[in-house]
This record gives sequence, structure tokens and C-alpha cells, in this order.
Amino acid sequence: MISKITPLSKEIINTLQKKIDFKTKPIGALGMLEDIAIKIGSIQNTLTPKITTPTIVVFAADHGITKTKKVSPYPQEVTQQMVLNFLNGGAAINVFCKQNNINLKIVDAGVNADFTPNNQLISTKIAKGTKDFSTEKAMTITECNTALEKGKEIVNTLFKENCNTIGFGEMGIGNTSSAALLMSYFTAVNIENCVGKGTGLNDQGLQQKKIVLRQVYDKHSLTIHSPIDALTAFGGFEIVMITGAILEAAALKMTILIDGFIVTAALLAAFAIDKNVLDYCLFTHSSGEQGHQKILNHLNVKPILNLGLRLGEGTGAAVALPIIQSSVLFLNEMATFESANISEA
Amino acid sequence: MISKITPLSKEIINTLQKKIDFKTKPIGALGMLEDIAIKIGSIQNTLTPKITTPTIVVFAADHGITKTKKVSPYPQEVTQQMVLNFLNGGAAINVFCKQNNINLKIVDAGVNADFTPNNQLISTKIAKGTKDFSTEKAMTITECNTALEKGKEIVNTLFKENCNTIGFGEMGIGNTSSAALLMSYFTAVNIENCVGKGTGLNDQGLQQKKIVLRQVYDKHSLTIHSPIDALTAFGGFEIVMITGAILEAAALKMTILIDGFIVTAALLAAFAIDKNVLDYCLFTHSSGEQGHQKILNHLNVKPILNLGLRLGEGTGAAVALPIIQSSVLFLNEMATFESANISEA
Repeated sequence: MISKITPLSKEIINTLQKKIDFKTKPIGALGMLEDIAIKIGSIQNTLTPKITTPTIVVFAADHGITKTKKVSPYPQEVTQQMVLNFLNGGAAINVFCKQNNINLKIVDAGVNADFTPNNQLISTKIAKGTKDFSTEKAMTITECNTALEKGKEIVNTLFKENCNTIGFGEMGIGNTSSAALLMSYFTAVNIENCVGKGTGLNDQGLQQKKIVLRQVYDKHSLTIHSPIDALTAFGGFEIVMITGAILEAAALKMTILIDGFIVTAALLAAFAIDKNVLDYCLFTHSSGEQGHQKILNHLNVKPILNLGLRLGEGTGAAVALPIIQSSVLFLNEMATFESANISEA
Repeated sequence: MISKITPLSKEIINTLQKKIDFKTKPIGALGMLEDIAIKIGSIQNTLTPKITTPTIVVFAADHGITKTKKVSPYPQEVTQQMVLNFLNGGAAINVFCKQNNINLKIVDAGVNADFTPNNQLISTKIAKGTKDFSTEKAMTITECNTALEKGKEIVNTLFKENCNTIGFGEMGIGNTSSAALLMSYFTAVNIENCVGKGTGLNDQGLQQKKIVLRQVYDKHSLTIHSPIDALTAFGGFEIVMITGAILEAAALKMTILIDGFIVTAALLAAFAIDKNVLDYCLFTHSSGEQGHQKILNHLNVKPILNLGLRLGEGTGAAVALPIIQSSVLFLNEMATFESANISEA
């Protein structure tokens, strides 16, 4: 079911580096922009990479835990309300996608509401929210596999529509809880050190969230023997779909824009399934949510931006896209020392 | 001669913060984008700021020191060659300005060459390079005042052409030496800790540069009693023009995009002349040149990007502009909790 991911060829890296070193600038002077250019050139296996139809897919779903435990300051219905806000163009992700000419798709992965059909909305609801993982696993294995498959299908469709650069976002009240549990399982960091304030818990709320999630973690951890088990116990439908989407995007050799805490938790599951997935990922920012930088450290990767964003929706990926485009453009468009008749060092 | 700079009114800050807090996102979730939005709103004294005709002015000039001392791995003629590269559209700053719809102007502030007239080139040469500051002051007081005045005039002209957001870049083989000397004078950091590898000296070259600049510093420091004296002894014509340009841009209430090491050294002189200038500055990035982060710490400011760029030309400012535009756009375009019918926390 999960497509094979080919590791990047190392051969083109030297050739890309040489092309960059002939540009009219001191060696290494474009810093991380050079690393990004080499990564995208390697992914596309060309010295002249292009970003085509950049797209952000926002997966939305609800979480059973929010019905019995106060893990978020916002009520569950905000997930549904925010989906409508996305469809009406009023959310941050709308503004940034419009600014940067990014194609935006919204996916109902499992929101506890019914939506009227809309061109921008992909309806693939698994259920009206997960089960409450304080009492049972969040979903069945079948639901988990279906969600992985749906994520895969969505990416496949976008790939056929000429998209080669894809970012993922999420909306789901309670989903930092799900992400913290997955982070703890996949990184072996204590759950208490994975939990953050999410959308804005106060210190007391944060303490309570830690106690709840410690109980949830201990309830399920001994029954988990695979990444799929972990997703089944702790996942949200949006998170599992993102895991499936990331795996397929890597298999299709797309450049993947990893956003914040929740998307990176979904990546941890994908990484546990196939380590090669990392070759295709750019880490667009370090979130203000406290666990995120720890995951980035665990993966030994450096984020492009560090603006203290902690909004989700894929906003970090959307805001970082122009920087990524700068990388591709300097590689393609800058003159060389020779073509510009400039003396070398 | 130097225009008066009005400090920002603190009154509008609370109103801007309230407007931001009504947007459909958790409080503070857009991190530094919120700080930037408040800064630009305050500068323009409006809840609906706009960025109009964003412009980067690259000032180029030569440095006498390069004729007798090996402070750069590149020969002096590269300044002239790079100016031609700018005019031909082949440099990094051309690529990034084109990408981000930034108006680009090149200024001959004192290049050791004659250029044929060109629409994009502003010719205001003070002299064909500064004097060698290892033996005498870099320029006369009259030259220094003329350079400040020229910088002021250029900004005034752009302001009349509807530009309200301006960044400055520079090109000048040897100008990290000039910037390090100014940094040392204005921050009281030992010259050895201000000196970096510039365009790419090796460790031995760096040692030699430190020895040279220590001698230069000690030769002039006792004769310096004002910011103008410091610019006269240590300046480059491009740096002094940037100081004049920054002061005028602040007086005209423009948003100023501060680039890397050399531009920030020019800002230190402006700051010593009028502390209010800082109210109008955004710090677009932290450069890979080792002294830069120390200046940012000295000014107690946080850069937007940290990509290890160390190219100059205003490239950091150009690459950061989309992030700054994201700030203004979310402030203007995002829905509120009320308008989108979303439950609050």
C-alpha cells in the first residue's frame, strides 16, 4: 500500500555545488539558500530545478479527547468554524497562500460536522472525530489504513495536476495532544517534555494537560508495536492523512514543505515507516510550540525560519515559500564570474 | 543639515495589538509577524499600513586600504565589475529584487572607475575611492558631509516617487574593514572581535586583517570626538551615504530594512547621531559575518532571518521582504472572530 521511496542520488550534489560556486558571489555567501538549492536540485535531479504549482493541503479533523478533557482553551466546534473560515478566505493561511501564489486545498479528514459541497473542500471524512484516547484507541486499524490511503490519493491527484512542491497544514482542536503523544513514542522523550501550551493554555492548564497525556500514554504504550499501532492509538485523522500524504509525496519525488509541531509529528510516523522520506523534506520553520524544536533536533535538521509562529494551518510553510523560491531562482538566474567578467579571489 | 526624527507614538501600539488579537488565531500565534505588523502600523500611524514601491538602494565605493594591505581575497576592480553586473541584472540582488517586485537602484558613491550613463545608476561619486586609512583619515570632513547629504537627497527623491519602505545594500571591496572599525568605535567591542572573514579570508588572512585594523584603530581613535569624526577616519563613501540615507528615511517616516554587517555599521553611526532612528528600522537578517550578531545584540534587536547570508548587496533585505509583506497582509486581510463567527477561547 505504501509506495517505495528512492533515496536521493548523491552524484548530482557535487555538480550543483560547482554550479553555485561559479556564481558571482563569495563561496558559501548565500548560506542556507545554497543548501536549499542543492536539496531541490537533488530531488528533481537537475541543475535547473523549478517549483511548479506549489500547493498547501490543510487537513482538518476532530479529537474525541476534547469531549472529556480540557486539553485546549477552545471548544471543539472551532474546528468546523475554522474550516468555514478557510473556505471563506478569512484565515491566515488564505492570506499567505494568496500572497505567495500557493494553491490551497482544504480536506475534511474527520470533522464533527457536515459541510455543503465546495470546490476547495476535499471531503474524505473517516468519522466525525476520533474516539477519546483516554478510554480507548483513537481509531481502528482499518480507519488508520484508510486515512493513510486517502492522504496518498490526494497527493497523487495534485501530482497529476503538475504540483511538484507540497506543504501540509492542519486544523483540529486538541491535535497538539495527539502530536505530543506521537512525538513521545517516536523520539523517546518523556511525554511531559513533549506537551506544550498549544493554542494558549495557561500554566495550570498545561499542568493538567501533562497529567492527562501521561495517563493516555501509559494506557496504550505497551500495546504499540509498530508506527501504525502508534497512529491508531494516538492519531488524529488529519495527522494520519498527513503521514500518508508525506510518504506518497516522497515516493513521487516532490519537495515537501514541513510546517510546525503537528505536521512534524506526522512526519515522525512517516520516518519510522521509511527513513528515506527525510531526503525530500524542507523544514520551513521552528514553531513556538515547545516540543517542535526538540523534534527538529531529534531529526538533526535545521529550520528555515524561526519566527515564533504557532498557528498551524501550514502557515509556516506558506510564509517560507518565497525563501525557497529565492534559492531556486539564484541557482537558475545569477551570472557566473566568467559570464560577468569578474576577477576571482 | 540632518533632518529631525520624531520618535514613534506609543498610542497606536495598543490599538494595533487589539486589532491583531481579534483576528482568527490564538493570541500571539503569529509570533514575530505580529511585532513587525505593529512596528509598521506605528511607523505609518495607521491600522491599515501599506508597503508602497519597496526599494533597495545599493551604494558602491572603493577603499584605499585595499591598495596597500591584503584585507580581502578579491582585488579592488571587483567593485567596478560588480556594479556592471548589477546594471546587467546578473547579481544575487537583481534576482531577489525581480522575484519580490523590489525597485532596485545602484549608486556610484566612490568607485575607482568611470561608468557610462545608465538609467539604473545614480552617479554621485565623492572621489575614486577613499584614502588609505592605515596612513591617513579615509576622507575629509567636507567629503563626509557631502556623502551624508547625497544619501539624504537620494532617499528624498525616492520618497517623492511613492516609496515608503527602503532597504540599503553595499558593494565595496574592503568595506568589512571599514565596518569593523566603526563597529569597534560605536560599540566599544575590541577591534579584534569585530573583524571577520569578509568575502572569505582564510585563518591566516583573518589574523593579518586583525593586526592591520588594530593599527588603524589605534592610529585614529584618539582624534575621534564625534560620529562624524569616526565616519571621516574609518568610513567608506558607500557607508557614509547609507548613514545619511538612513537618517533621512527615518525623518520621512519610512520603514527601513537593515541588511547585514556593513549596513548595520552605518546604522550605528546614524544611531549615535539620533537614537530615534531605531524606531524606523526592521532588522532583516543576522549575517554570517561574525561581528554582525554582536551589533544586533548591542542594539538589543532581533533579526527576522538567520540564514547565514554574508553576501551584502542588500540581499538579506530583499529576501526578507515577503515576510514583512506577510505581516502587513495578515493585519489587513484576516477575518476576526466576530466576522467569521468563531467561538473564542
